[in-house]
Amino acid sequence: MTALSEKAAENLMAIRKKRPLIHNITNYVVMNYTANALLAMGASPVMAHAPNEVEDMVAFAGALVLNIGTLTDDWIGSMIKAGKKASQLNTPIILDPVGSGATPLRTNAAKNIINDAEITVIRGNASEILSLRDQNSKTKGVDSIHSVDEAAAAARTLAEELSTILAITGPVDLITDGKQILRVSNGHPLMAYVTGTGCTATTTIGAFLAVDRNPVTATATALAFFGLAGEIAAETASAPGTFMIHMLDALYTITPDMLKDRCRIEGQ
Amino acid sequence: MTALSEKAAENLMAIRKKRPLIHNITNYVVMNYTANALLAMGASPVMAHAPNEVEDMVAFAGALVLNIGTLTDDWIGSMIKAGKKASQLNTPIILDPVGSGATPLRTNAAKNIINDAEITVIRGNASEILSLRDQNSKTKGVDSIHSVDEAAAAARTLAEELSTILAITGPVDLITDGKQILRVSNGHPLMAYVTGTGCTATTTIGAFLAVDRNPVTATATALAFFGLAGEIAAETASAPGTFMIHMLDALYTITPDMLKDRCRIEGQ
Amino acid sequence: MTALSEKAAENLMAIRKKRPLIHNITNYVVMNYTANALLAMGASPVMAHAPNEVEDMVAFAGALVLNIGTLTDDWIGSMIKAGKKASQLNTPIILDPVGSGATPLRTNAAKNIINDAEITVIRGNASEILSLRDQNSKTKGVDSIHSVDEAAAAARTLAEELSTILAITGPVDLITDGKQILRVSNGHPLMAYVTGTGCTATTTIGAFLAVDRNPVTATATALAFFGLAGEIAAETASAPGTFMIHMLDALYTITPDMLKDRCRIEGQ
Repeated sequence: MTALSEKAAENLMAIRKKRPLIHNITNYVVMNYTANALLAMGASPVMAHAPNEVEDMVAFAGALVLNIGTLTDDWIGSMIKAGKKASQLNTPIILDPVGSGATPLRTNAAKNIINDAEITVIRGNASEILSLRDQNSKTKGVDSIHSVDEAAAAARTLAEELSTILAITGPVDLITDGKQILRVSNGHPLMAYVTGTGCTATTTIGAFLAVDRNPVTATATALAFFGLAGEIAAETASAPGTFMIHMLDALYTITPDMLKDRCRIEGQ
Repeated sequence: MTALSEKAAENLMAIRKKRPLIHNITNYVVMNYTANALLAMGASPVMAHAPNEVEDMVAFAGALVLNIGTLTDDWIGSMIKAGKKASQLNTPIILDPVGSGATPLRTNAAKNIINDAEITVIRGNASEILSLRDQNSKTKGVDSIHSVDEAAAAARTLAEELSTILAITGPVDLITDGKQILRVSNGHPLMAYVTGTGCTATTTIGAFLAVDRNPVTATATALAFFGLAGEIAAETASAPGTFMIHMLDALYTITPDMLKDRCRIEGQ
Repeated sequence: MTALSEKAAENLMAIRKKRPLIHNITNYVVMNYTANALLAMGASPVMAHAPNEVEDMVAFAGALVLNIGTLTDDWIGSMIKAGKKASQLNTPIILDPVGSGATPLRTNAAKNIINDAEITVIRGNASEILSLRDQNSKTKGVDSIHSVDEAAAAARTLAEELSTILAITGPVDLITDGKQILRVSNGHPLMAYVTGTGCTATTTIGAFLAVDRNPVTATATALAFFGLAGEIAAETASAPGTFMIHMLDALYTITPDMLKDRCRIEGQ
């Protein structure tokens, strides 16, 4: 898809030029790595979760990233407060429903955030995303999904029901707004051996949303860029420690032209 | 000890096959590194500390890791709640009493957790472990211990009093159930220059407990594996930054056969 | 400045000999990296923030580091409590007012900490430091500062008003007690692509304060040492991931003689 390759290059160039501030309310495990990833790609990270600060902080931000790993009730309150403010300001919001479906706390928190703020994009794995269905959903459950095509169909139905963009990441990433479906096949298996690669993909989407107001292309190009960083890291690293460090390097060294040449996004 | 070398290899193979979920309630400093260590060795980490979630989460886990670094009162409550649930489920629990003996908060928290949950293994350095003695203990204090033999004798007495397995780590690691004593001599001095190597040894024991229900052999083989990762990292790294990254690599690249050949566990 | 070069070498030697305990109450993003930096340079880190523990912990410490990133109200209380105790004990305190000036929570917290504890040194970028002015300050605001000389003049005025040492870090670091001004020009542009290099500079100053009771020379020599680590890392790394790891290596490998030869501190 030539147009999307060019869009990817353009978005990366824009991030490095504008250095958008990305406000993250995210989990303890990945705070350092996601902040480093944002800096390496050219964006500016801020992590702030105090209930009496999040509205002030999100007002400066180009995008808001909400991530429910290591969640507690007080953090849910801050996420909703920041999300409402971002919604008022038309600041794009991306939600990472880490562990949704695994415990009631996570599932309910994800659903409440979706209800209370205008989420632009939700990124997760198939079981996290499909846990967001409500009782009346026509979407298939994750246990009844056995192929990428079934996942794509389920994602499309759910995106329409939730009126948001969904990104289901895996060996092939699926992005849908309920109509269009894009598939991104950049990436590398070692990414699954580094904690927070999913969360870092999410914050990368945040950076791309800050410079591209079409959330479908922002999400697809962000995932292609992040996956390409994994591919490039794997050219010199063969184990998870050096791989995760080389991924940060790649986020810094990938040029818009490299991204244009090597991103693999297919439309439908 | 041939039997233990074979057990070490077998345990590592089982972790990579079963990918046990290890539930960590641990300190902020090491969350990222311990999660990456678990992934690298082949296990699945989850970090969750909310009082209204820990019981749900530990129900899925193969082991529970409790670590009292960066402790506050609300985290103690969550640790005890998770520990009680794990005890009911016969899920192995490993406690890392970081800083016990240094402040009343830490010492009391460690003792309360030990009282309220059925701790399978406690791992710490000599002063942390020996701070767990109660008033009536016959165990010598850390200040009166001047040799590995004296430490071993003190650990044996205390393990019997606490009815748990104790692992005192240092240049030589001692593991005892109050009767048997095993000594593990794998490791490297650079490990002391990386934050959280003790905590990561603890979570490694968690992964081995999830696949080996004999806590003495699980602990000894885990410490041999973790120490060997340090030795292998030191073959290519000579300073702490690259060393800590190469340790993650080694946790991934060590094969069961390498572990069998190079683990150094001695019985008594 | 020969005398300061020698002082730098002497301070580094003292840290490695005495291994001072540095008590950090700092933000989640940088806890791991700053702990590793302290270990690599030869100091001992402890992170503890519980209100019912900070006074006990700071009593053991050679310096207290207060850092207001990822701040919430309860952490402010702990910082003030620890700061008051350290003040009573004449333990040096260094404050990093991360984000002061950006939100009222941060600005007010920084000012309250300064009022309630005897801060030895404050380190930040120009806008953070100049946000600490009160209404009656004669200091110029950050928007009216267009050169290193103007920044130096503003810092000098403010240091006198606050009766503390100020360190404004950037391509050239300025250190002033309101009279004397020192300039440190060690460092590398890649440091801006790693999260928490400012925070780690702060904790490095903490380690130097623990062995050098002249806070002006402690701060200048710490910043020269930390900047030199960046220069040395950049000799082998050209992207932020490997660079941040090689910086940790350099903090370990820099010898007092190397520091003496390569530190660039100018007096006025």
